[in-house]
Amino acid sequence: MIEDICKRAKAASVQMVGLSAEQRNSALCCMADALEANVDDILLANAVDVRAAEGRGLKAALLDRLSLDQKKVGNMARELREVAALADPIGTVLSSYVHPNGLIIKQLRVPMGVVGVIYESRPNVTSDSAGVCVKSGNAVILRGGSDALQSNLCIGKILREALLNTDVPVDAVQVVNSSDRRDAEELMGMRRYIDVLIPRGGADLINTVIEKSKIPVIETGTGNCHIYLEEDTDLDMALPIIINAKTQRPGVCNAAEKLLINSKIAEKYLPKIITELRKYKVEIRGDQKTCQIMPDVIEATEQDWYTEYLDLIIGIKIVEDLTEAISHINKYGTKHSEAIITYDAAKAARFMQEIDSAAVYWNASTRFTDGNQFGLGTEIGISTQKLHARGPMSIQHLTTTKHVIEGNGQTRK
Amino acid sequence: MIEDICKRAKAASVQMVGLSAEQRNSALCCMADALEANVDDILLANAVDVRAAEGRGLKAALLDRLSLDQKKVGNMARELREVAALADPIGTVLSSYVHPNGLIIKQLRVPMGVVGVIYESRPNVTSDSAGVCVKSGNAVILRGGSDALQSNLCIGKILREALLNTDVPVDAVQVVNSSDRRDAEELMGMRRYIDVLIPRGGADLINTVIEKSKIPVIETGTGNCHIYLEEDTDLDMALPIIINAKTQRPGVCNAAEKLLINSKIAEKYLPKIITELRKYKVEIRGDQKTCQIMPDVIEATEQDWYTEYLDLIIGIKIVEDLTEAISHINKYGTKHSEAIITYDAAKAARFMQEIDSAAVYWNASTRFTDGNQFGLGTEIGISTQKLHARGPMSIQHLTTTKHVIEGNGQTRK
Repeated sequence: MIEDICKRAKAASVQMVGLSAEQRNSALCCMADALEANVDDILLANAVDVRAAEGRGLKAALLDRLSLDQKKVGNMARELREVAALADPIGTVLSSYVHPNGLIIKQLRVPMGVVGVIYESRPNVTSDSAGVCVKSGNAVILRGGSDALQSNLCIGKILREALLNTDVPVDAVQVVNSSDRRDAEELMGMRRYIDVLIPRGGADLINTVIEKSKIPVIETGTGNCHIYLEEDTDLDMALPIIINAKTQRPGVCNAAEKLLINSKIAEKYLPKIITELRKYKVEIRGDQKTCQIMPDVIEATEQDWYTEYLDLIIGIKIVEDLTEAISHINKYGTKHSEAIITYDAAKAARFMQEIDSAAVYWNASTRFTDGNQFGLGTEIGISTQKLHARGPMSIQHLTTTKHVIEGNGQTRK
Repeated sequence: MIEDICKRAKAASVQMVGLSAEQRNSALCCMADALEANVDDILLANAVDVRAAEGRGLKAALLDRLSLDQKKVGNMARELREVAALADPIGTVLSSYVHPNGLIIKQLRVPMGVVGVIYESRPNVTSDSAGVCVKSGNAVILRGGSDALQSNLCIGKILREALLNTDVPVDAVQVVNSSDRRDAEELMGMRRYIDVLIPRGGADLINTVIEKSKIPVIETGTGNCHIYLEEDTDLDMALPIIINAKTQRPGVCNAAEKLLINSKIAEKYLPKIITELRKYKVEIRGDQKTCQIMPDVIEATEQDWYTEYLDLIIGIKIVEDLTEAISHINKYGTKHSEAIITYDAAKAARFMQEIDSAAVYWNASTRFTDGNQFGLGTEIGISTQKLHARGPMSIQHLTTTKHVIEGNGQTRK
């Protein structure tokens, strides 16, 4: 079954090379219309998934990701229309060079071919990923988590039916009807057909894909994000950023998971910060020094410093200085998003240069690491690796290039 | 040993983040001077490798790759100076976006960190790779083939000694003193320390690295390159290109390995083409139809169509039309470089659009796929994958990006 899906995706990707931007954009609008016209079917399928997940005791942050409502489906349709409205990335001439012998050497932006997406419980990923892939001229194979299987199959069916009336081949969008781990592993070996594999989800999913995949992978979305308070900061600046980064949406990858604080200001500010976090029901796990200042705080384990909680939990550590903050983050972080809160421009510059992460912030919430917030449009994920794309990825990151060379008989000397 | 090498590379890469372009360029010039000053040592070490390889009966094309002489060492030094003279890629602002809330979001070019290079018998890869890595602010771990071990160790020692008098840390360049396969496999698992792994060599090496590596890989260098003669072409245009692409340097990846010819012109042109190729001692392996026209041609096997010979051998196949040529190339090729020879612009355009390769040529030799020929400067390899870099890779392809965001207390709504 998996190889058959891959072959059909490959054939669809070949057909898509010849399509114009208008043909792809018009298909995206049909896909959006179809989602809206079939919202009841989607919510019905989603209700089946949600009920089953509640029965299995899925935790709140994951249920929030799984659940759809009228508004969320409306947002999925809106995202597709927004993607249709973005400038077309295909065919752009990225560079042009005339060789002394007269050869014209151009580098053009072309579709990647076949994109595989392996994800967890958010069914909106199905339509968002389909949208950015069709926009960028690719065929996509979508393999979501078992929690969302009925929702994903329903959304996939609606999108494919919509494509029937367009120039984009139906097999440009396929949802794998299986939550069997062996099928996922077979998919990860399909290097002959799939050009890039994008896992979207938690650390376990990402690590499994990295271990098993023979296809080039773009790691996305694991965010053990840090905020560091330098000794000169004040709570007017720091506290709203901490509360926003930790509590505004704790289940997403750009939420803060750790707070580092300079030892010179820890005694003065930590009690107020912890009291305020607790108002938002945040559980505190502190290092030994934090527990000395606030004896009712649970002591963090070594494992805590590596953990992305995706929940209302924060790890707090007191550090001696900027140097210790930087080395802690580079050791335990996931290279996603980290912030320094300070009025000292030189310290901020050092933090932003030496921290090895996709996004480094000075006096702002880590929650901004997002394709829309960065002005890129809908994202297909946030890359935490250094190859190909880093940070929020959108349509241009689903393309590759081709060198097109025109001559009149040139041979190499 | 391997983990120790990796740790030292990582530490060196952190130190390199703070270096200026001048500091890196000056180190490159010291490296070039040192190669020239120690050419006798290099040739002595290389003679040991070459003698051993001859004893093992290494084939001519590979011996050509392994052997150094005064001129080749001079070229290695010249390459380092040319890399030093290239514009600096680090710190470039690739995009800048001001969020409606006032956040300033910039995307900067930064070093990748630690680059691993696994290669075969060309010792010049040692200094070329060290050069592009130092230029782009990276530390490099070089693991060459057993054939060239003495040459590589000698070149590595000279380059490291040169770094002692510069601001670039000595451990920015390390040559692995082992040709044990288990050490190579251990290296491929060092995801914590190495940011990208670049295999440079034949198909077996590349496939092994793809199978075993947990580190993101850029595939390079396997070139089963094709030339297709359309029915309207003539030998004045076609023959010099075929001879150049096949015979000028048969042991390199952009040499042509296959000739496809339209059936309408096969009987007329093939005898002349084959006679000419044989003057250059090229062995011909033909499909059944070719053997019917030229009965003294050896019949090619199915495996031949997949094979990169890297030798004076060419596979010849008669195809019905452009469509068959395109699908043959997309099936059997390695997505490196392919050429169409025709006076028909529409057919050339279709070939260049539908062929899924890093470089597509109209009326020119495939031998031009090369960083210097494309105006990029020294290359670190030719990528045949679609992720991150495609085609000749140079210093900018050894960088990644970082989003640097400056605010004054912004939180997400």
